[in-house]
Amino acid sequence: MKNMEFNFDTPKDQLLEIIEEKHSQLEGILQECQFTTWLVFLRETAANPDPVQNLVIGGDVVWESAFIFHIDNKKFHKIAIIGDFDAEAERNKALWTEVIPYTEGISSILSETLNRFNPSQIAINYSDDDVVADGLSHGLFRKLSRYLPKMQERFVSAAPIIQRLRARKTKTEIDLVRAACELTEEINNEISEQLQPEMNEVEIQQLFHQRMNEHGVLEAWERDACPAVDAGPDKEMGHVGPTTKFQIQSGHTLHNDFGVKLKGYCSDIQRMWFFGSREEIPEELDYAFETVHGAITRAAEFIKPGVKGMEVDQIARDYVIKRGFEEYKHALGHQVGMKAHDGGVILGPLWERYGDTPKGIVEEGNIFTLELYVKTDNYGMVSLEEDIVITNNGCEFLIPRQEDWICIET
Amino acid sequence: MKNMEFNFDTPKDQLLEIIEEKHSQLEGILQECQFTTWLVFLRETAANPDPVQNLVIGGDVVWESAFIFHIDNKKFHKIAIIGDFDAEAERNKALWTEVIPYTEGISSILSETLNRFNPSQIAINYSDDDVVADGLSHGLFRKLSRYLPKMQERFVSAAPIIQRLRARKTKTEIDLVRAACELTEEINNEISEQLQPEMNEVEIQQLFHQRMNEHGVLEAWERDACPAVDAGPDKEMGHVGPTTKFQIQSGHTLHNDFGVKLKGYCSDIQRMWFFGSREEIPEELDYAFETVHGAITRAAEFIKPGVKGMEVDQIARDYVIKRGFEEYKHALGHQVGMKAHDGGVILGPLWERYGDTPKGIVEEGNIFTLELYVKTDNYGMVSLEEDIVITNNGCEFLIPRQEDWICIET
Repeated sequence: MKNMEFNFDTPKDQLLEIIEEKHSQLEGILQECQFTTWLVFLRETAANPDPVQNLVIGGDVVWESAFIFHIDNKKFHKIAIIGDFDAEAERNKALWTEVIPYTEGISSILSETLNRFNPSQIAINYSDDDVVADGLSHGLFRKLSRYLPKMQERFVSAAPIIQRLRARKTKTEIDLVRAACELTEEINNEISEQLQPEMNEVEIQQLFHQRMNEHGVLEAWERDACPAVDAGPDKEMGHVGPTTKFQIQSGHTLHNDFGVKLKGYCSDIQRMWFFGSREEIPEELDYAFETVHGAITRAAEFIKPGVKGMEVDQIARDYVIKRGFEEYKHALGHQVGMKAHDGGVILGPLWERYGDTPKGIVEEGNIFTLELYVKTDNYGMVSLEEDIVITNNGCEFLIPRQEDWICIET
Repeated sequence: MKNMEFNFDTPKDQLLEIIEEKHSQLEGILQECQFTTWLVFLRETAANPDPVQNLVIGGDVVWESAFIFHIDNKKFHKIAIIGDFDAEAERNKALWTEVIPYTEGISSILSETLNRFNPSQIAINYSDDDVVADGLSHGLFRKLSRYLPKMQERFVSAAPIIQRLRARKTKTEIDLVRAACELTEEINNEISEQLQPEMNEVEIQQLFHQRMNEHGVLEAWERDACPAVDAGPDKEMGHVGPTTKFQIQSGHTLHNDFGVKLKGYCSDIQRMWFFGSREEIPEELDYAFETVHGAITRAAEFIKPGVKGMEVDQIARDYVIKRGFEEYKHALGHQVGMKAHDGGVILGPLWERYGDTPKGIVEEGNIFTLELYVKTDNYGMVSLEEDIVITNNGCEFLIPRQEDWICIET
């Protein structure tokens, strides 16, 4: 049998490199947030992971484990308190100023260690609105409150730390997301050559899954819906799997929403095909494409460090409405990184389900999607999605964007 | 390039079958626990999953989603309240008595739906001691408390439900864990033929990873330590990766701790090799092997539905001490299923880090590991691990256990 490589995890050396980059961002971020102390409290992460693990620790822990980042008279302490079976692995990473192993229980050593610093606030991993800053389970929160009865009043959300740390992609991270985008486009191009009339959505998705297997990469979100495949005018796009009911037909569109996980980082891209020659595209479809494309252009021209997420969404939303379409029922963009939905600031409207995330500020090094759809009367939905990185004064598309329909002559 | 199959996820049809089996267990379990209402509250599960997802829902959700199981005048309600983009996928599963989509926010419809039933208690997914019953993040808990201000006093831990549901493996699940064990043993046997003096631990682990890739399966826990590979007398076993420092040598042992994830279910098995003929094995090693083997035998003969986890651990622990060894610094056994550490009852001592889990009762259909080590003075550690399923009056080993050293003539 052929020796296949799995390429979906960050290689160990590269992960450690990213974690070192993140640790070096962290001291400044703590000061900026006016926190002295961040406590990452984990257990059995293979069964119940915390999204920050691969940002600041790398790998799993088995027993209850505490990772303390603390600034004290300008000294930066980084302490790992872990089960003795995990201790050697942690020491080998050479990330920590102290590694403290325990055997029977963590409570006393955790309490003693924090008492050394006696911090006025302790940031822990919960967040009402940001899923990737919300890694502490409620049961672990209760435990922590019992272990540190005198300190539980000092617990505050670590979301400001985690959001900055996660959102300010390092050069290594940006290169990894770009590589995932490039592979996504490569697979899209390969599949373009195989598309034929009467193929149904399920068959098309299978072609994608086959290519992903060959490249040893995973889906960036649930496999049933990655890629989402939507053929023809009657398919409601969204997070729903492909069906055998809808097929490729001459004069119809095909849409996908596709991302891969390559070396631990994700892409998230939507593309649209038309079956027929460029000249056969109905004016209604062209107008819709120009609207979606134009809304992305306007948002990309507007976005830069310092603007609010909601302001970027509004630019695109206003444009769609001005062009006579119903507004899209989702946010214009989310961050992309280790996860396809990487948390933090959202480019979205102030709807309940987005909480305060659209009020957040866009920063250099952030990677966002720009995505939206419009509905035509006769030809179904038109939807595109691009991935951008924020530069010091604007943004760049990570890979060339879709400028026109991909026409497949039938 | 060869078309590789990824075999680590449960095939969609089989997952739906398991979820249907679990749904049919659930009505009885709710009654047994004297709960009327279980609320599973999720969001963005691709970034922050809840371990119960694949037991009762199957697949991911994007927006905040509530799955309500409620018994009312003997009617069993199963209600999914989900973002409208997820609604069709949920309807297609045909699992729910009602699917209620929303667009802007879940709070009012969630509150109205629960008010229809006005339950005196609402079980939600937190647990101090059981990681797989602790899927609700603290941030989501806070949100839920705000959404349901009049009901938050009624929140109780769903751990009794989740533990039963997860631990009572259905026939489909037992077959899947057995298949993972069989593949683990198959790979062990294949590697046995390739082992040669002077191979170091890292090289040996690479052989395993290559075979896992060929079979399209994933590691059952962190890849760096799966399999754990321990060569010779000076290696401290534990959750630590292999090193280039320790190599296979004539007259020495080799140990691994290995599990695969095949079709969504895990194995967790330890094996030991000796390099030399059967006759060359030092008496000290043989005595240690007999002790570990004998402790497993005694635990397996004792275990049956109705005993407490801690009682089973005590049998093995006493035997090890009686034979003159220091007691092992971990629990004798944990459950295995979708996760290598599948939560619930632990066969362990009453140490702080195991909380109340060793007090739990063993039930028919549970799958446990039986694992322990002893330390010899001159030849390093001897450690074995078997996977068993609890029957109506005892237990069965899922695959034939290791009865003697695997001797590799050098």
